[in-house]
Amino acid sequence: MKTFAIAIHGGAGTILKNIMTAEKELEYKSGLEQAIRSGEKILASGGPALDAVEAAIIQLENNPLFNAGKGAVFTNQGKNEMDASVMEGKTLMAGAVTGVTNIKNPITLAKTVMQQSEHVFLSGLGAMEFAEKMKLEFAPDEYFFVQQRYNQLMDAKQTDSVTMDHNDKKTSGKDKTGTVGCVALDVNGNLAAGTSTGGMTNKKYGRVGDSPMIGAGTYANNQTCAISCTGHGEFFIRAVVAYDISCLMEYKGLSLKQACQVVVHQKLVALGGEGGLIALDAHGNIELPFNSEGMYRASLKANQDLFIGIYKV
Amino acid sequence: MKTFAIAIHGGAGTILKNIMTAEKELEYKSGLEQAIRSGEKILASGGPALDAVEAAIIQLENNPLFNAGKGAVFTNQGKNEMDASVMEGKTLMAGAVTGVTNIKNPITLAKTVMQQSEHVFLSGLGAMEFAEKMKLEFAPDEYFFVQQRYNQLMDAKQTDSVTMDHNDKKTSGKDKTGTVGCVALDVNGNLAAGTSTGGMTNKKYGRVGDSPMIGAGTYANNQTCAISCTGHGEFFIRAVVAYDISCLMEYKGLSLKQACQVVVHQKLVALGGEGGLIALDAHGNIELPFNSEGMYRASLKANQDLFIGIYKV
Repeated sequence: MKTFAIAIHGGAGTILKNIMTAEKELEYKSGLEQAIRSGEKILASGGPALDAVEAAIIQLENNPLFNAGKGAVFTNQGKNEMDASVMEGKTLMAGAVTGVTNIKNPITLAKTVMQQSEHVFLSGLGAMEFAEKMKLEFAPDEYFFVQQRYNQLMDAKQTDSVTMDHNDKKTSGKDKTGTVGCVALDVNGNLAAGTSTGGMTNKKYGRVGDSPMIGAGTYANNQTCAISCTGHGEFFIRAVVAYDISCLMEYKGLSLKQACQVVVHQKLVALGGEGGLIALDAHGNIELPFNSEGMYRASLKANQDLFIGIYKV
Repeated sequence: MKTFAIAIHGGAGTILKNIMTAEKELEYKSGLEQAIRSGEKILASGGPALDAVEAAIIQLENNPLFNAGKGAVFTNQGKNEMDASVMEGKTLMAGAVTGVTNIKNPITLAKTVMQQSEHVFLSGLGAMEFAEKMKLEFAPDEYFFVQQRYNQLMDAKQTDSVTMDHNDKKTSGKDKTGTVGCVALDVNGNLAAGTSTGGMTNKKYGRVGDSPMIGAGTYANNQTCAISCTGHGEFFIRAVVAYDISCLMEYKGLSLKQACQVVVHQKLVALGGEGGLIALDAHGNIELPFNSEGMYRASLKANQDLFIGIYKV
């Protein structure tokens, strides 16, 4: 029997150890474990990678600690606008949404776009109309109201700053969260990747980051790898990060580890792009590189111990 | 003195020679020539590739024959929703917008996002708010009303079909237009690429195609090439077409011609993706490949004759 593997992230950024309490750290680790176990359960019973990705991301979206779904940060207009995407490595099918509000699990909407529409990428009110037609679950504004997030917006408005995932030093590392994502390999050798985010605190102008962009924030191809990114999205778009790793493997013959090294620690750094990603190849090799202070992350393979990390190791 | 080069497209699809009149053909060719000459003028006087790309695309956006700007097709809701993107090969800076209405020249908005905002990609009302702040030109609904486009919507609604650029066989090849784009190389060796579109007739759900997606519909890198795509966008997104050509050159050592052959005539065909693209490398080599019946296109280099084509040659 073939192996399976899964990795998740809860965002990258400046996570300062000296201002993180032991209690908060436990909450994050417990949230990460709960999410990865949901995905593991599906993979261990022979289920598809795509379903494992969705299951793990739903847990992260439902957890207010992470900047996706319930925990999505507030835009400048005081709304929670979310983006998500998924891709399947066997068929290269993909689905994505941007700028949706009141959708309980944007990752499920992205998967439904992939499976039930003739399109790949839907936006705003149109995407929500599609969600309604597909009878997906909506949640009221109150569901998405998290006091810490609202405080972050008020702080950001005072300084007129647009704040990335975990990089708001002012409100102390404790309140930082980020984009979430998952990559999985199932026992049939299929890869899948997914990413979901609430964007940046105080964001304006309907800004779209890399998370819903196939090739930038998310990519999966059974011939190479599955990737989900987190970080300063503008740089990840310009560097087409997720697909770049796949191309370095396919066209230049690099290993997953080498490709991650080149993209995260050389190309992104040269461009000034802070962040990281989770990566998985068809042999079950896992890489969790980041060039920021930290990245909430977890990984496991069949019959191996769970790894959970926040800071550099 | 170094050379300069420029290529444009006005969309790819099923352009049937037997139903195209000589008069209409002349109109298209004249529109293409006018656009490419606007870009040439800038390049010949030593101006930057990015400005040449913008100038050529503005001409195509202002021409009702092409599906961008004034000639944008109608969505299911009877609106003209437009997408555009630009990228600069020297800095890898990029700008893009999706789902904007009443913006006279979306390509200028994309360029302004690149140069004046801290973001790469803005959407919908937010993008329009940014355009207003930047004092860009708006146009009323009437400006975008083109009777043929409205007839196309009525036809598409009757059959409940979503119609791609030129592939509405029912309304006879004459009414077909498409995404527009431009790639340019300036005398300083800098590449730039841009794409602008009105999307698909009768499109629903805020569908986003490949045109505003950096890496899929548009890409430029001085080390490799500048690319602008046109065709069935969903396939171009899944194949990350524009960046794939760049990667095949950078990582596998293919020539521009070889990379175009692999992506347009092998990978896209295998996936079922119909369309084409315009490509230019830093040496001034030009490729205009498409796997559809035709593609409105034109190209020229310093001191060489203008090429204009619609069908296969």
